[in-house]
Amino acid sequence: MTTPSDLPLADIQALQPLAEQLADAAREATLARFRSPALAVETKGDLSPVTAADRASEAVMRTLLATHCPDHGILGEEEGGSGLDREFVWVLDPIDGTRSFVTGSPLWGTLIALCWKGRPVLGVIDAPAAGERWIGCAGRPTTHNGQPCRTRAVAGLEQAFVFTSSPDLFTDADRPGFDALSARVAERRFSADCFAYGMLSAGWIDLVLDPGMQPYDYMALVPVVEGAGGVISDRSGAPLSMTGDGWVVAAGDAALHAQALAVLTGR
Amino acid sequence: MTTPSDLPLADIQALQPLAEQLADAAREATLARFRSPALAVETKGDLSPVTAADRASEAVMRTLLATHCPDHGILGEEEGGSGLDREFVWVLDPIDGTRSFVTGSPLWGTLIALCWKGRPVLGVIDAPAAGERWIGCAGRPTTHNGQPCRTRAVAGLEQAFVFTSSPDLFTDADRPGFDALSARVAERRFSADCFAYGMLSAGWIDLVLDPGMQPYDYMALVPVVEGAGGVISDRSGAPLSMTGDGWVVAAGDAALHAQALAVLTGR
Repeated sequence: MTTPSDLPLADIQALQPLAEQLADAAREATLARFRSPALAVETKGDLSPVTAADRASEAVMRTLLATHCPDHGILGEEEGGSGLDREFVWVLDPIDGTRSFVTGSPLWGTLIALCWKGRPVLGVIDAPAAGERWIGCAGRPTTHNGQPCRTRAVAGLEQAFVFTSSPDLFTDADRPGFDALSARVAERRFSADCFAYGMLSAGWIDLVLDPGMQPYDYMALVPVVEGAGGVISDRSGAPLSMTGDGWVVAAGDAALHAQALAVLTGR
Repeated sequence: MTTPSDLPLADIQALQPLAEQLADAAREATLARFRSPALAVETKGDLSPVTAADRASEAVMRTLLATHCPDHGILGEEEGGSGLDREFVWVLDPIDGTRSFVTGSPLWGTLIALCWKGRPVLGVIDAPAAGERWIGCAGRPTTHNGQPCRTRAVAGLEQAFVFTSSPDLFTDADRPGFDALSARVAERRFSADCFAYGMLSAGWIDLVLDPGMQPYDYMALVPVVEGAGGVISDRSGAPLSMTGDGWVVAAGDAALHAQALAVLTGR
């Protein structure tokens, strides 16, 4: 990961244990509700039981943040934002992949990001049901379950394994780009949500893309992917930030990333 | 599950521990190769490293069968069939979901079926990386990790969560039926392969369908789904057998199953 000289590396790295503590607490809150009979009976299209798990998970993380760093801002999927003009802001998605959560698939996760002056510098992708955790922290290599991990490079799109959350999330305007990309790649797969960015960071797949994403869906992905040697941006190629086009395009290496952006935008 | 009076229930049930022993041995063989650096480096469109894991897994199962029931037939994905006219025939898929396997997703599994006179009467869906196992055995309730499990019923297609392995596996002739079904259901998800039939049997989702399947892809699913209270057939509604139209349609209850078949076939 690029680490500009103005980055307060020591301060950021000192917060990694707290980020892991948040992930531990969220894991307990979500696993207690995963595959519960109540969820099985109540869902079937109604996502409110997931919202309950979402809220419980975000609440325990907010409690920890209020105790340990009351002067930091927080943006959470459930409770919204406060103190977003602070130097440090946490961005939380208690359950990314709610459709996996309600269908009993282990491919959902909790996303935790720490931003410094709007730039994501610490990120956790935690997949409680799968028992897997990726952590990216400025100035350190990304880890998968505690071991350093790296993205892989492929010769080009024709060799690439590509993931996206669903073929149903592309707008009519976006579909031609996605169809063109699909026609080029070795294989396309779906329904892995945030877990796919972990797979990319571990060097198992080559490209992940998602349209229509919110900051809490992607801020945590940035330090994880970059710290593993990958490249991540929006569809214009710009760094992901609190504003943007809602797209996330992540690749194992810069050449594949550029190739994917060119096909997606029809350049 | 319906248990016709001519079924040698005691003989079949006595073979359940052997089926579990096969699953244990296959689990060791596959997990040793899952996410291995060799796999990560060599794949990228080339599935031969998976074939090596496939072969090793099938070999250990065949060794156990040769020791414990040399008079039984075997049909395996890798080594083909022998003794298929015997009263008891084992049907083995050492790794179902090779694309999950090569991409590091935990949603792949080993499928083990025991057929009696062509009818699947004992089935195991084992997902080693996820640490989950479903067992269906004639005359017994299906279990998930040792606990009895049941499918759920929904009011109709509009409430149904539906899985299929990939939107890319439908032929032009099959696509209209799948598109019509997709338009009706609450949610469609992909890329779970055999794991989806476990999810159905546990009552987390409502409908799973797959075209272009082979007997080793589906024979093990039958006792699992039926023993959990679900309904499974080919697209014509006929029981799954060593021959058929290659379709598998499984639902949590009979009404939803009938509704799905009607939409898929345009009746």
